[in-house]
Amino acid sequence: MIYFGDTAHLPYGTKSPATVRKLTVEHLLYLGRRGMKCAVIACNTASAVALQSLRARLKVPVLGVIAPGAREALRRTRNGRIGVIGTATTIASKAYELALRRLDPELKVTARACPLFVPLIEEGLVRHRLARIAARMYLKPLIRAGVDTVVMGCTHYPLMRGVLGKILGPRVYLVDSATAVRLETERKLGELGILRRGQGRGRASFFLTDTGGSFPKVALRFLREAPDRLIQVRV
Amino acid sequence: MIYFGDTAHLPYGTKSPATVRKLTVEHLLYLGRRGMKCAVIACNTASAVALQSLRARLKVPVLGVIAPGAREALRRTRNGRIGVIGTATTIASKAYELALRRLDPELKVTARACPLFVPLIEEGLVRHRLARIAARMYLKPLIRAGVDTVVMGCTHYPLMRGVLGKILGPRVYLVDSATAVRLETERKLGELGILRRGQGRGRASFFLTDTGGSFPKVALRFLREAPDRLIQVRV
Repeated sequence: MIYFGDTAHLPYGTKSPATVRKLTVEHLLYLGRRGMKCAVIACNTASAVALQSLRARLKVPVLGVIAPGAREALRRTRNGRIGVIGTATTIASKAYELALRRLDPELKVTARACPLFVPLIEEGLVRHRLARIAARMYLKPLIRAGVDTVVMGCTHYPLMRGVLGKILGPRVYLVDSATAVRLETERKLGELGILRRGQGRGRASFFLTDTGGSFPKVALRFLREAPDRLIQVRV
Repeated sequence: MIYFGDTAHLPYGTKSPATVRKLTVEHLLYLGRRGMKCAVIACNTASAVALQSLRARLKVPVLGVIAPGAREALRRTRNGRIGVIGTATTIASKAYELALRRLDPELKVTARACPLFVPLIEEGLVRHRLARIAARMYLKPLIRAGVDTVVMGCTHYPLMRGVLGKILGPRVYLVDSATAVRLETERKLGELGILRRGQGRGRASFFLTDTGGSFPKVALRFLREAPDRLIQVRV
């Protein structure tokens, strides 16, 4: 597996759709030239604004996180009221609303951008009072709307599952789009007959546009082991 | 005045020195080709890691924010204990410590990175409880060290002056490096005999590497008027 992290430009969540699209297309074309059997756009912002451009330019299947997350939310909701939280650009793109309404036009969707969550997570403050207060502030309109399902529409947010779950209560289902896209990728590769059937763990390489920043520290929080094989890619 | 905002890559505060240096040199060479009489690196992170590279490459005077801020702190302190707050990269660079100790090796400097301040400010939450709690958390080691002067080592932080002042108390002087560099620029231009002597206000153009993002909204908080003349620069 090649993990490509555009650390020189992150975060994408506050950038314009045109910039995110340009960067994502460049990086995927770069990976395409190195050979790959499938691409997963494991970023909600990039999925929200760049997926169509990417599919038009690449010959391999390209999966985003929006559609799998929306389908999982639809499977889980009982009252048809779904909350979506994400970065400023993901929420402004209305990608989840569109995907959900395409599945069922009757759904009531309440979306909220949560720009403090990413820095709180990257600071390791997910159990701090700051995380609770920020989460209560951001989730208020979702609770008021009576949602029974909330899509964590940013790959960072599952690290805040604890505090989000406590504020929303046990009756609200939290959709982790990462899990949804993992299952979708497995299904897609199986369908195409290109799923790896080997024993043991695969290998991961980390291609970064800036290897000098906080990536190793932040990656440790997600992977629960230090990432090796960091490869600097020219920005 | 040309304001150049690298909005496609911001924030710089979490990137590696090599990346910040590369971007800053590229942008200044671009501005140099358009003609300018003086460059101000109005970003603490870029000043901290890129100033020497820039001075070696440009023929016009290049001013950073670190040295003027350090000199102002030295003028203000009575007990020789100075606090510095800034982004992760600025603090990791130790640029303020070095500048201060070069002025006076006896100074006791306590530095602290405050990665939540920029997103809090960009969200307009400077009067929110979240800002107070984050500030108390970050300032604790400075208060414990008995500092009587604190350098706001990030161009965003003066917007949090209210909450910082309340937590530090009236006996602690807050150095705004923006004011310090403004005075230094005026002095430098006067010395070189190239200070504009016209009546009325100057004109400002805004060159941005991404005009589509939140710049107009955030700029409004700083300028207290909407910025016009936004010009998209190719990233």
